[in-house]
Amino acid sequence: MPKRLVLSALTLFAAQTAGRNMTKAAYVAVTVGVGVMVLLTVAPAYEAAHLWVDTVLWACWAYFVFEWAVRLRHARTAQRGWGYALSGRGLVDAAAAIAVPLALVCGADPRTAWLLAILWVLKVVPGIPGLRQLRRVLVIESGPLLSVLVIFLMVLFLASVAVYFFEREVQPGTFGSVPAALWWAVATLTTTGYGDVVPITLPGRLVAALVMICGLGVFGLWTGILATGFAAETRRDNFLKTWESVSKVPFFAALGPSAIADVTHMLRTMDLPPRTMIIRKGQQGDCMYFIAAGEVEVDLPGKKVRLSEGAFFGEMALLGNNLRSANITTTRLSKLLVLDLVDFRLLMARHPDLAQTIDAEANRRALENE
Amino acid sequence: MPKRLVLSALTLFAAQTAGRNMTKAAYVAVTVGVGVMVLLTVAPAYEAAHLWVDTVLWACWAYFVFEWAVRLRHARTAQRGWGYALSGRGLVDAAAAIAVPLALVCGADPRTAWLLAILWVLKVVPGIPGLRQLRRVLVIESGPLLSVLVIFLMVLFLASVAVYFFEREVQPGTFGSVPAALWWAVATLTTTGYGDVVPITLPGRLVAALVMICGLGVFGLWTGILATGFAAETRRDNFLKTWESVSKVPFFAALGPSAIADVTHMLRTMDLPPRTMIIRKGQQGDCMYFIAAGEVEVDLPGKKVRLSEGAFFGEMALLGNNLRSANITTTRLSKLLVLDLVDFRLLMARHPDLAQTIDAEANRRALENE
Amino acid sequence: MPKRLVLSALTLFAAQTAGRNMTKAAYVAVTVGVGVMVLLTVAPAYEAAHLWVDTVLWACWAYFVFEWAVRLRHARTAQRGWGYALSGRGLVDAAAAIAVPLALVCGADPRTAWLLAILWVLKVVPGIPGLRQLRRVLVIESGPLLSVLVIFLMVLFLASVAVYFFEREVQPGTFGSVPAALWWAVATLTTTGYGDVVPITLPGRLVAALVMICGLGVFGLWTGILATGFAAETRRDNFLKTWESVSKVPFFAALGPSAIADVTHMLRTMDLPPRTMIIRKGQQGDCMYFIAAGEVEVDLPGKKVRLSEGAFFGEMALLGNNLRSANITTTRLSKLLVLDLVDFRLLMARHPDLAQTIDAEANRRALENE
Amino acid sequence: MPKRLVLSALTLFAAQTAGRNMTKAAYVAVTVGVGVMVLLTVAPAYEAAHLWVDTVLWACWAYFVFEWAVRLRHARTAQRGWGYALSGRGLVDAAAAIAVPLALVCGADPRTAWLLAILWVLKVVPGIPGLRQLRRVLVIESGPLLSVLVIFLMVLFLASVAVYFFEREVQPGTFGSVPAALWWAVATLTTTGYGDVVPITLPGRLVAALVMICGLGVFGLWTGILATGFAAETRRDNFLKTWESVSKVPFFAALGPSAIADVTHMLRTMDLPPRTMIIRKGQQGDCMYFIAAGEVEVDLPGKKVRLSEGAFFGEMALLGNNLRSANITTTRLSKLLVLDLVDFRLLMARHPDLAQTIDAEANRRALENE
Repeated sequence: MPKRLVLSALTLFAAQTAGRNMTKAAYVAVTVGVGVMVLLTVAPAYEAAHLWVDTVLWACWAYFVFEWAVRLRHARTAQRGWGYALSGRGLVDAAAAIAVPLALVCGADPRTAWLLAILWVLKVVPGIPGLRQLRRVLVIESGPLLSVLVIFLMVLFLASVAVYFFEREVQPGTFGSVPAALWWAVATLTTTGYGDVVPITLPGRLVAALVMICGLGVFGLWTGILATGFAAETRRDNFLKTWESVSKVPFFAALGPSAIADVTHMLRTMDLPPRTMIIRKGQQGDCMYFIAAGEVEVDLPGKKVRLSEGAFFGEMALLGNNLRSANITTTRLSKLLVLDLVDFRLLMARHPDLAQTIDAEANRRALENE
Repeated sequence: MPKRLVLSALTLFAAQTAGRNMTKAAYVAVTVGVGVMVLLTVAPAYEAAHLWVDTVLWACWAYFVFEWAVRLRHARTAQRGWGYALSGRGLVDAAAAIAVPLALVCGADPRTAWLLAILWVLKVVPGIPGLRQLRRVLVIESGPLLSVLVIFLMVLFLASVAVYFFEREVQPGTFGSVPAALWWAVATLTTTGYGDVVPITLPGRLVAALVMICGLGVFGLWTGILATGFAAETRRDNFLKTWESVSKVPFFAALGPSAIADVTHMLRTMDLPPRTMIIRKGQQGDCMYFIAAGEVEVDLPGKKVRLSEGAFFGEMALLGNNLRSANITTTRLSKLLVLDLVDFRLLMARHPDLAQTIDAEANRRALENE
Repeated sequence: MPKRLVLSALTLFAAQTAGRNMTKAAYVAVTVGVGVMVLLTVAPAYEAAHLWVDTVLWACWAYFVFEWAVRLRHARTAQRGWGYALSGRGLVDAAAAIAVPLALVCGADPRTAWLLAILWVLKVVPGIPGLRQLRRVLVIESGPLLSVLVIFLMVLFLASVAVYFFEREVQPGTFGSVPAALWWAVATLTTTGYGDVVPITLPGRLVAALVMICGLGVFGLWTGILATGFAAETRRDNFLKTWESVSKVPFFAALGPSAIADVTHMLRTMDLPPRTMIIRKGQQGDCMYFIAAGEVEVDLPGKKVRLSEGAFFGEMALLGNNLRSANITTTRLSKLLVLDLVDFRLLMARHPDLAQTIDAEANRRALENE
Repeated sequence: MPKRLVLSALTLFAAQTAGRNMTKAAYVAVTVGVGVMVLLTVAPAYEAAHLWVDTVLWACWAYFVFEWAVRLRHARTAQRGWGYALSGRGLVDAAAAIAVPLALVCGADPRTAWLLAILWVLKVVPGIPGLRQLRRVLVIESGPLLSVLVIFLMVLFLASVAVYFFEREVQPGTFGSVPAALWWAVATLTTTGYGDVVPITLPGRLVAALVMICGLGVFGLWTGILATGFAAETRRDNFLKTWESVSKVPFFAALGPSAIADVTHMLRTMDLPPRTMIIRKGQQGDCMYFIAAGEVEVDLPGKKVRLSEGAFFGEMALLGNNLRSANITTTRLSKLLVLDLVDFRLLMARHPDLAQTIDAEANRRALENE
């Protein structure tokens, strides 16, 4: 009996593990595992809690082996063949499971072998929310970014040789070879400036000053390129998320496709769990909402009104005195479209028919509440 | 008699304290209090002015206790119940009043206890002008910012373990554990580069160079995201501030709602106290003004003309020789809408009727002045 | 005779000095003066060239006194009264003339007194090309910039007190008071990281890590705000420079005012001295030019053609094979409007009549050259 | 016989070298040459591999002499006279060939003379992909960038003199002259912060704190300017690359020139070598493709369909379930126009006739595949 229970719990757990990128259990395992691995390297801490540290690490490892096994099996069942095993995620899962035992087998000292547990942090990568967006920016702007990198490397090499030439006789210990000068150059060009290696001759310092100023320039170019890329990507991302929902709201359906594209740029989607308060009575309001999916409950004095898909709310604060007049809460998982005050005004100005619809509804509601 | 005077002054002062976020008195108290607290930690300064320092600190503390009490009472009167006491502002006010005495009661050394006076600086937070704007940017861009933070942490941990591995035998003192290596990594990845802990092996230095370059990248991403957010937020903020005023100016009322939205993007609001000079005769002029509220006085040769709400001025420099032809001063608290030269030209080009109105008025004024 | 010559030369020179912000002579005087002042502080250099250094410094000083006197007299002649003397520029001129002798009179050591010659660099300020643009950005974005500054200061104070608390017992020498901790905090928050004062306790280092990350954030906000401001200001500046010229070119005059505003955003002005080569035969061309003022000479095989105000050239490379077909040089000081390839195409697409005019002219020229 | 073969191979190689900016051989020679030169400065490495290092360096040098000779001859043949020899590229080629032997002839120590091999990295400059774009940004934004540089220098000099004044008596070793203080100032203003020279007096530290904050400001301005420039340049670059191709695709030819300009801003070009997989069955699709040049092969079940210039593909994932339904590969060097999902929707909304064409084609294909 208990055996069956354990088995079915395990199956359920396995199904969850296979289906998602990162379960909560995986986040806990990564955090605890890496945290304990860090402790392991602190000699007094390790000596004090020897057994405990080892147990936790092996437990985390066991979890990752289990996760890998479940996913491998799931992939075979879904007939994706080696797709998962050879994908980036599969390889990270494999490394997380195999690296430490492999090092132990190869004869590494246990405290050194466990350092490989740092590979577990790579498991977090697919779960990073904006990663796809970041990657797209890096790909699209790769041309200019590469140019800046090449310029960075050229300045690095030219400066190293120059400073090596000027400083090698005065400081043979620290500037005794070009690789040593490169170490100085990289710390200077990134404006890190450790100060362990510093030029002391006049020409050496002039070169150093130039390198620092170049550093600012390289940095500025880098940032400028990324800022440009992000502006475009943010707009794109929002448009994609919103488009689907907009066309489902009857309020907007009357608009032509061109106006819908226009409206889509103005809206922002928001996914809310059940029983979340969206609007609190008496607060200042600077946006209105359209329900793309789900349902909300308006807490009017004496009664509760439910609004479902296609309805809108929150417009009264935008038309009137800026204050919310009732509490509004989701009743189940809902997707809302948020229209900011600025865009509300632009929309009303451009589409007088929408303005009339909203005005009429707001008047009806105001009368009802009186 | 004097007792009644003191009481009424106190009541007035209390009313002011309760109503605003930060009175001038509060700014003075925070600045003086924190300044003196800093002095307290300088042994010779404290010994020289022992009594004086203590007196000022207790006085500041008394002011904050008074402020907290007044606000608590005000909140109870306004029947907001525990709303204020549990709000962020209420908790800061409470901490400012309670922290130091509590520490003293708990037996802390007075000079240590007074360090808690640093909490007073938190009182400044609600008074920061652009804070709402900053917060909106951080909320809206929280997705990508979080991604960058996660990447930051991953690089931090991977680099620390790598450098610990390479350096631990050569520099057991400074790289003797992963936490010690983390300290190095954070100083390097943020390009701070203290130089107290520096890798000296070749692989260690290669890792360090990579970390520095990653530091630049993380920084660039961070800045790029914030720059994007700010561009949008600045436009939004200006639109909201201006919209209300624009629709009240009769000059713009003739335009349709769509054109008003267009005009709103071109204008900037400006709140001016009474008796402020807006335009100085003979200066170069690159904008014109519309009076949304208040009144201004034009100092023409031989007479003074007053312009009130709805009027405009400053257009002659834009149409003619670029120089202001008279001094113009506010007579009372006024709200002006500023139209920059560039937008003036665009507006005139797009709305020929507005151009005619302005031209006619400018001609009339030019004739009058002759 | 020679006396009269010297006088008239001096008058001419004085007239130039009074009329402009910075003459070439002033630039030379500032550069030489400050350069020699720097040398003065290098003991061996000063001892070697004692007399020479003193002579040059006094000569520079004499020039600045002369400049100040000429400008003061010019201002009185122009009846601007104390306007100049009390303006920022007038005060800088006064300081440049008076500071050093005043210090000498007050009994300062000559080598110390001459340090005040550094004030001469302030004379360069009005001559900085984009300064007006920079100042406008700082003024318009002053709200958010101030917010970031306040946040910066708050983090500074909170971090200093925290680190002072954690480090004062372990490092009483470097973290012995809050002012000392502030010095550490400012070097850390700006990511400068001298490394002369470094926390060594665990909580101290945690605070330091937070401060470094805040430093990146503050920096990012700062940059984001400035980037936003600059984007707007650059557009504005270009529009203003170009607008005047555009309306004077007959080619654009046919367009309505709204289209002219549109075209203005596409053009860039360029001021060229006489005998400057604009186009070199055989080079790649990615823009065409309109002559807003001045004259150019086209060096065709066998003849030279002159084009004057209102004409355009360089369109053949944009329509044909991308290569310039003749050398073109200015004959006198000219102002050109540059239309980039991208905007050329947009313009041609939006205004088919302009496209026809340009096509016809290009065909005529191509036939002529054959 | 073999002699003739060698000669003809050499001729072919020479032709390639003359025609392109950088051949693959040149990249190898630069990388290997500079790498070995760096090794040369490491005493133990050089002693161990004396002969080998020398041989490689002379071989690289021989290659660069050959390259220079071939290009000089090519330029003379093409009758461009001294054009190449005196161009930037020609001078770099000359320096790469002459510098090292010249230094040896002048009697320099061989290990010092070979340091000049660092000039070889300059050969990479013309090959940097986004360099033209970078240069245009720097030219167009040169005004504000110069202003920031002047401000940077002014702060540098003012701060140096101030800190020299305050610190010279306490630290005569490190702050003994203004040039020494300048070295400190440049390291501080760029936020490098070596920490080799640090103020210790209170006024000196206050100046230092101001300089650090100015450093952040200068940096922010710099970045802001470059970000603005890049945003404009990226758009321009993409427009130019895409325009030519768009007008050749019949699908867009029906649109008027104004709409084509609009469409051009939406597309991105992509150059692909033969046999490159563009679309992989089962992947998520977020863009569609138009063939501007070349040919692709669609791998349908049971047959292979070829699409050539003017055709489009990938639209089914955008209209349907988001998943790619077939593998698609290039058969030869192809130029594709990529239309992103966001822009696809905007295009469909604005041009209903294009939407119909695409819908019809997608339906036809879907039927065919069933």
